Amino acid sequence: MRPSGRAPDQMRTIEMIPGFSAHAEGSCLVKFGQTHVLVTASVEERLPPWLRGKGSGWVTAEYGMLPRATHTRGSREAAKGKQSGRTQEIQRLIGRSLRAVTDLKALGERQITLDCDVIQADGGTRTASISGAWVALRLAIDGIMAANPGMADPLATQVAAISCGVHDGQPVLDLDYIEDSDAGTDANFVLTSSGGMVEVQATAEGAPFDEETLLRLLRLARIGCNDVFAAQLKATGR
Amino acid sequence: MRPSGRAPDQMRTIEMIPGFSAHAEGSCLVKFGQTHVLVTASVEERLPPWLRGKGSGWVTAEYGMLPRATHTRGSREAAKGKQSGRTQEIQRLIGRSLRAVTDLKALGERQITLDCDVIQADGGTRTASISGAWVALRLAIDGIMAANPGMADPLATQVAAISCGVHDGQPVLDLDYIEDSDAGTDANFVLTSSGGMVEVQATAEGAPFDEETLLRLLRLARIGCNDVFAAQLKATGR
Amino acid sequence: MRPSGRAPDQMRTIEMIPGFSAHAEGSCLVKFGQTHVLVTASVEERLPPWLRGKGSGWVTAEYGMLPRATHTRGSREAAKGKQSGRTQEIQRLIGRSLRAVTDLKALGERQITLDCDVIQADGGTRTASISGAWVALRLAIDGIMAANPGMADPLATQVAAISCGVHDGQPVLDLDYIEDSDAGTDANFVLTSSGGMVEVQATAEGAPFDEETLLRLLRLARIGCNDVFAAQLKATGR
Amino acid sequence: MRPSGRAPDQMRTIEMIPGFSAHAEGSCLVKFGQTHVLVTASVEERLPPWLRGKGSGWVTAEYGMLPRATHTRGSREAAKGKQSGRTQEIQRLIGRSLRAVTDLKALGERQITLDCDVIQADGGTRTASISGAWVALRLAIDGIMAANPGMADPLATQVAAISCGVHDGQPVLDLDYIEDSDAGTDANFVLTSSGGMVEVQATAEGAPFDEETLLRLLRLARIGCNDVFAAQLKATGR
Amino acid sequence: MRPSGRAPDQMRTIEMIPGFSAHAEGSCLVKFGQTHVLVTASVEERLPPWLRGKGSGWVTAEYGMLPRATHTRGSREAAKGKQSGRTQEIQRLIGRSLRAVTDLKALGERQITLDCDVIQADGGTRTASISGAWVALRLAIDGIMAANPGMADPLATQVAAISCGVHDGQPVLDLDYIEDSDAGTDANFVLTSSGGMVEVQATAEGAPFDEETLLRLLRLARIGCNDVFAAQLKATGR
Amino acid sequence: MRPSGRAPDQMRTIEMIPGFSAHAEGSCLVKFGQTHVLVTASVEERLPPWLRGKGSGWVTAEYGMLPRATHTRGSREAAKGKQSGRTQEIQRLIGRSLRAVTDLKALGERQITLDCDVIQADGGTRTASISGAWVALRLAIDGIMAANPGMADPLATQVAAISCGVHDGQPVLDLDYIEDSDAGTDANFVLTSSGGMVEVQATAEGAPFDEETLLRLLRLARIGCNDVFAAQLKATGR
Repeated sequence: MRPSGRAPDQMRTIEMIPGFSAHAEGSCLVKFGQTHVLVTASVEERLPPWLRGKGSGWVTAEYGMLPRATHTRGSREAAKGKQSGRTQEIQRLIGRSLRAVTDLKALGERQITLDCDVIQADGGTRTASISGAWVALRLAIDGIMAANPGMADPLATQVAAISCGVHDGQPVLDLDYIEDSDAGTDANFVLTSSGGMVEVQATAEGAPFDEETLLRLLRLARIGCNDVFAAQLKATGR
Repeated sequence: MRPSGRAPDQMRTIEMIPGFSAHAEGSCLVKFGQTHVLVTASVEERLPPWLRGKGSGWVTAEYGMLPRATHTRGSREAAKGKQSGRTQEIQRLIGRSLRAVTDLKALGERQITLDCDVIQADGGTRTASISGAWVALRLAIDGIMAANPGMADPLATQVAAISCGVHDGQPVLDLDYIEDSDAGTDANFVLTSSGGMVEVQATAEGAPFDEETLLRLLRLARIGCNDVFAAQLKATGR
Repeated sequence: MRPSGRAPDQMRTIEMIPGFSAHAEGSCLVKFGQTHVLVTASVEERLPPWLRGKGSGWVTAEYGMLPRATHTRGSREAAKGKQSGRTQEIQRLIGRSLRAVTDLKALGERQITLDCDVIQADGGTRTASISGAWVALRLAIDGIMAANPGMADPLATQVAAISCGVHDGQPVLDLDYIEDSDAGTDANFVLTSSGGMVEVQATAEGAPFDEETLLRLLRLARIGCNDVFAAQLKATGR
Repeated sequence: MRPSGRAPDQMRTIEMIPGFSAHAEGSCLVKFGQTHVLVTASVEERLPPWLRGKGSGWVTAEYGMLPRATHTRGSREAAKGKQSGRTQEIQRLIGRSLRAVTDLKALGERQITLDCDVIQADGGTRTASISGAWVALRLAIDGIMAANPGMADPLATQVAAISCGVHDGQPVLDLDYIEDSDAGTDANFVLTSSGGMVEVQATAEGAPFDEETLLRLLRLARIGCNDVFAAQLKATGR
Repeated sequence: MRPSGRAPDQMRTIEMIPGFSAHAEGSCLVKFGQTHVLVTASVEERLPPWLRGKGSGWVTAEYGMLPRATHTRGSREAAKGKQSGRTQEIQRLIGRSLRAVTDLKALGERQITLDCDVIQADGGTRTASISGAWVALRLAIDGIMAANPGMADPLATQVAAISCGVHDGQPVLDLDYIEDSDAGTDANFVLTSSGGMVEVQATAEGAPFDEETLLRLLRLARIGCNDVFAAQLKATGR
Repeated sequence: MRPSGRAPDQMRTIEMIPGFSAHAEGSCLVKFGQTHVLVTASVEERLPPWLRGKGSGWVTAEYGMLPRATHTRGSREAAKGKQSGRTQEIQRLIGRSLRAVTDLKALGERQITLDCDVIQADGGTRTASISGAWVALRLAIDGIMAANPGMADPLATQVAAISCGVHDGQPVLDLDYIEDSDAGTDANFVLTSSGGMVEVQATAEGAPFDEETLLRLLRLARIGCNDVFAAQLKATGR
């Protein structure tokens, strides 16, 4: 029995509110249960110097968490003067995941920055971020394409992410904070809507895991990502 | 005529959503028109070492702005490795304003940290922060008092803040971003519900201002703060 | 009775020694009683990149305090690796105040940096800095004008600043450290020689203050600034 | 055909020189072909404050790369003033991997720090670091056990890591720098000598990968880690 | 012929103004010609944690330069967020030099911090700092001894420093900025009043130097330091 | 009797392994007994902006120490976020010493960076670094000259460094860690193969030293550097 009463392969309620931000070129408030992340996509028509003149664009991500997004207050990274290793690891993962489905040549010499800020955390903030970032990116690219008729769509495929883990000996989908805190194995999967894998990260928190477990977690992830893909389509009006 | 069509002494719509955060001891999402700030109050039952043993508590504030809260993306302070002078100035002002109405002795040896994070900005983020912080603080203190029967209320008075300025030669109340950008004089007032002033900051952006102007801005501020005081009472169920 | 024996509207002795620094284009050692600040004005004929090509110049300020300018030694900001919020707040105020009386177009594409370093502190270091900075700026601009015949004077008006406060229930002028430490209300006024206000900052340290008090402090500030204006004229040989 | 002429499932020559450092409690210079990493294990008999009094120890890791370990010189992290996201990600992975096979209770209130410094880089520095760190840790623990007769061995199992990837359409084992630079999929596996997985990280550098590919890379990793386990035993005289 | 018209073995005018600072336990404004350094000695009756309980005290130094102490403005170290290598090298030298003549056991569990801040620079700031620091330290220790009758004097000997160099092929004493800028060899000597050497630092700026040159520079340094010793005695009323 | 059993004028065994690094343009692993430093020379054909267009090149150095190069682990400078004063002092000395024997005009608009990383420390790391850096620089310049026929040799002379000190009252050559720890006087000499001095740094750790002692240490340094010069020639195949 999961603490939340969910079935092993049951996701939390997903909600994706497109256009949440008044200023950003694309945005999405994504909720996986009590985990709420605001993602904005900011388009800049110029690249930073080291990316210029190569005939292609760039997609990058930054990640942050409000100090009291969590059960107890964490210190503010801006006040401490540096981003933690965890923060950097997550924002690198988000950027990689979105670039994996973006045709940077087709994007042209533009940079899109995806800011993923966790308003409230209850496990799975990095996977919610990736999932919501696709919506914000899609909306921003829709805007670029509307302003540039004839431009090829640089975002042919969807990407989504979900966490799975072994809790109380049982593989379960979409861990919340309580499950995450004492999961035996913890895995994040980033999958594309065309069925491929973009990133797999599995970590034994306690005893090592075996191949069978990895594959069962992957199977759960496919179920979960399908839900996310549907929510993304709905949020972007497709 | 103001860009927004408002009368000179007309506030934007104020909305205060108490308990917005699932985890914080007190919280408030405060909206002054398109300016949205999430304030959380975090209670710690121990003080930092330099405040211990004096028989009184502490109230402090931190301020941040999501990178794309603004019209164009600003860089993330955590990534730059330091808080700007503007950020520090604002969070010092918020802390001072709330301490001005808190009886720190009555609070006891506890620290309450008010995190004010701007989700969306359209002028007046510091005054919205102070106004919302009172709600979050009030709710947090309600919780402490409920758990400590017989404790005296450390928060006898309300505090609110509003910006006023001279726009197009005319003193106006509650500047939005467009007005703020070319205001001749810009002033922030922090007032208490008992009629006193806690902080006055007036700056000539163009030509110097005179005493008459300062007093007219103060009169507008009294009008605006009365609206805020009412919204605070409603949000805290008083 | 004030601790120093001064009358409520009595300034400390003001001394302004122009040309104190052998190297700077303009300089002034300003003394308000035991508060001593060395201000230098450094002229650079090129602007930083972000200010170039707009046909106007820039005036900026930096502020620092020697570690043992104060009663007990403070730590050195260069050693700690960052400027405090207080330092940044003060240097922003100084820069704003001097820009308020400088015609940046008339200045031409030049930057003048005003370094205000507190050699000894006894209250009122920010107001002494602003007051002395006008002298250093005036001397630097005199030099620029001498080298550029026909150039319009970018500095038509004087600016000065003074602190006032309520001490022992009585509004007093030009607070020293002892008065500042237990002032009920503390205010800084930045005024121009043409009678206008450039900046007003008033803070309730204890009980909130009322309009009457604010106006009485302003009246004291006018008295004090007139003394400073006279000292500035004498120091710049006008 | 691989650039190095190796067979798809062929490792580079592994060399593990135990006791390379004169001062460290355990050490190992590990070479995977032209990738050379010096690992030292430093034992401290006291824990940092936040780990004390829980009756168990801690194993942590730090990672660095000499500026000219690589083909072109990289800037020195100490001079830049911060560790890159990549560095932090790697050192977190190393620490997690070694803790996964260490019984921290049995270790007692001690901290062992594993410093992994890349002397020369040719791909696979993180996996060589983990593999060599086990040797350094084993030797350090041997020393602790020798000085504490009757102490239970906190390190019952071996842990090793290897990178695999898809190069030119073919899954290959133990990528060198040339292969790594244009691998389609890149994966790191951390395995235990008892057959379990501790960490799996697979990333699509180009097109997404499928389950079959993931499993073929895992099979190669098992082959490679078996070689590493043998080298570890030899280096530690078992 | 030296640019200043001085004889090869002629010092600049030395001035040492004791008690320049109103707050410090000891202080001295030292002038070597146009080089002016304010040195304060701050006594703390407690040691930092890592020095406690060893029955002896500590003397340490910090060094800084006002941004416009030099011909062209240098950036402020506090604003840059770090002290330069040059600054650290100098403050380490000052601390070492003063500790060399202080009996730390006799000082008792106290720390004295010598802040050397260059108000104006014209060559030789580090040697002026050391020379002036002795005066500030002497005055501070006089105060400690006055308050602790029977305490042994921890400062039996004087220490002074001077720079010498080869200018235009000729060894000269007490280099000013113009000489320093194109000196062939540049040396700093720290000598005690009992005739010993505490520190010698000689650097070939152009061609290497020989033993004969080193000894001639040393001879000049002895002449110069004798002048400094006399000025120190006068400044401390001995 | 020295702790190592060496005669007062006896060096430790010197070993210089040229070409130790596979990637650097020049490199040397230098061993002075148990002190091991890896030096790499990295050639960049472009100068940093502030050195361009002056028709000459630049030689610079960086220094680091692996955390467990020493008897007890030191913290990693990259993790602490800054280089210590000691590190900066040493790398400035290395750079200066090598530039003293390099004709920067003849080098042309190139920069050579000498990275000196201490793999294992047993006293004298800065002097070993300078001595090994000459070998790495020589090899890198040999490569540049081979690719640029007719280019004049920018490195006409050798430079080497050695530490000497007074241990147990006796001047001794090439201090190891034990001797260094309680040396009365500690001196580093940087000498050229043509007999000149480039840098002398002598410090009294206890009692001040006299001229006779300085000269005796210099005499020892000449003996030691001659050994180093011979090892350098051998390592560079001359």
